[in-house]
Amino acid sequence: MTYCVGLLLKRGLVFMSDTRTNAGIDNISVVTKMRTWEVPGERFLCLLSAGNLATTQSTISLLEERCLAPAQRKSALLAQPSMFQTAKLVGETLREVISYTAETGQEASGRFMGSFILGGQIAGGQPRLFMIYPEGNFIEAGPDNPFFQIGEHKYGRPILVRTYDPEMPVEDAVKLLLVSFDSTIKSNLSVGLPIDVQVYETDSLVAGFRQRFDDRDPYYRKISDGWSDALKSAFESLPPFVPSRPGA
Amino acid sequence: MTYCVGLLLKRGLVFMSDTRTNAGIDNISVVTKMRTWEVPGERFLCLLSAGNLATTQSTISLLEERCLAPAQRKSALLAQPSMFQTAKLVGETLREVISYTAETGQEASGRFMGSFILGGQIAGGQPRLFMIYPEGNFIEAGPDNPFFQIGEHKYGRPILVRTYDPEMPVEDAVKLLLVSFDSTIKSNLSVGLPIDVQVYETDSLVAGFRQRFDDRDPYYRKISDGWSDALKSAFESLPPFVPSRPGA
Repeated sequence: MTYCVGLLLKRGLVFMSDTRTNAGIDNISVVTKMRTWEVPGERFLCLLSAGNLATTQSTISLLEERCLAPAQRKSALLAQPSMFQTAKLVGETLREVISYTAETGQEASGRFMGSFILGGQIAGGQPRLFMIYPEGNFIEAGPDNPFFQIGEHKYGRPILVRTYDPEMPVEDAVKLLLVSFDSTIKSNLSVGLPIDVQVYETDSLVAGFRQRFDDRDPYYRKISDGWSDALKSAFESLPPFVPSRPGA
Repeated sequence: MTYCVGLLLKRGLVFMSDTRTNAGIDNISVVTKMRTWEVPGERFLCLLSAGNLATTQSTISLLEERCLAPAQRKSALLAQPSMFQTAKLVGETLREVISYTAETGQEASGRFMGSFILGGQIAGGQPRLFMIYPEGNFIEAGPDNPFFQIGEHKYGRPILVRTYDPEMPVEDAVKLLLVSFDSTIKSNLSVGLPIDVQVYETDSLVAGFRQRFDDRDPYYRKISDGWSDALKSAFESLPPFVPSRPGA
């Protein structure tokens, strides 16, 4: 499994992904699920992947080879006129890879599923964030649905729902996502450290800071240990339950 | 879907269940998923159910009819010599119902699955808590796994993992479970109010307090609204993230 989140803020985009991949519980590896591309001053793209690793890696390789082939430059990942067209290209490539693999008929096509979160900005447009489905179609984040999660999204969702604020600085969003990831990692073996984070600041048209957090990272340790204590204090701050209250 | 939790404490057992049941998103009803039985001074049992409603209701009806038939009193729910034997009877009955329904071959047997959390105490024994699977087998709670969740368990798990304490009073456990349920209800439509709670105090051999919380309940409102603020304060109490720290 996997856990990835892309967050749309007034001040930019924040992406976070875990790195655990497994073929059965006894075959676990570390693989990044975050890829970025940039043409400084023109565009920045970040892609987070979940699902079958062969599918998502093939999709990314095809997207990159299209970047490199001069004859196909018109249809390349970095030559799309808009984020919408970029999402469309990623979706079409993903669907193509899944169809090709499923064609052998060896397994149900469900085995080869994958999905992406794509975010970025192209000069002249706004920062945009998309969730791309295995069928190749996609939805876009907006004020009503300002973040997307893929993979093991349930454990870490309550804290996002309650604490996300579109006005928050990107540094606070990194802190929020670390709490969401730490809650997930503590509850589910299929999501694991290290964690990759990538920030993009609106209108910068260049990659913002990127960092990898492992279990020795002093800031990650402070968040992970501190959150247990902070949650306990928060819990204690709520009024006590008294059974058989009058009128209950 | 459903969300039910049974919690084992030094001072007793606490059970909580939602009441939403649905046959598709356009057909939603309220049905309790919590049943209790008691023979004061001798035994107390509480059963929480998840899964196909026809399956779990049939199982409970069969268990109750066996209670009522004098000729079968030896094998009845309230005549078992131990909590282990009670769990075995519930598991056997559940498996029997699923097998019978699946026999028609109209649908895969997965459609008729159900599971239970069973807790209680019989005079001469300790309070015990079991999770019963559709196959009829079961596992027991203990110091390493002091609570069971069935249904939509992921959203509400992080707060249980971080805040549960076997020494906590039953009233604090009710508060903790309300937070866990509220987080789930805010994230997933398939779990809904009202919420039923049942407490059992160790060696009382009689049902403890029972209450139903709906969205007009003043204590539930305090918890639900207060938890958002408490979480935000907890989040703010964590150290801020500063990118590009020396040595990072």
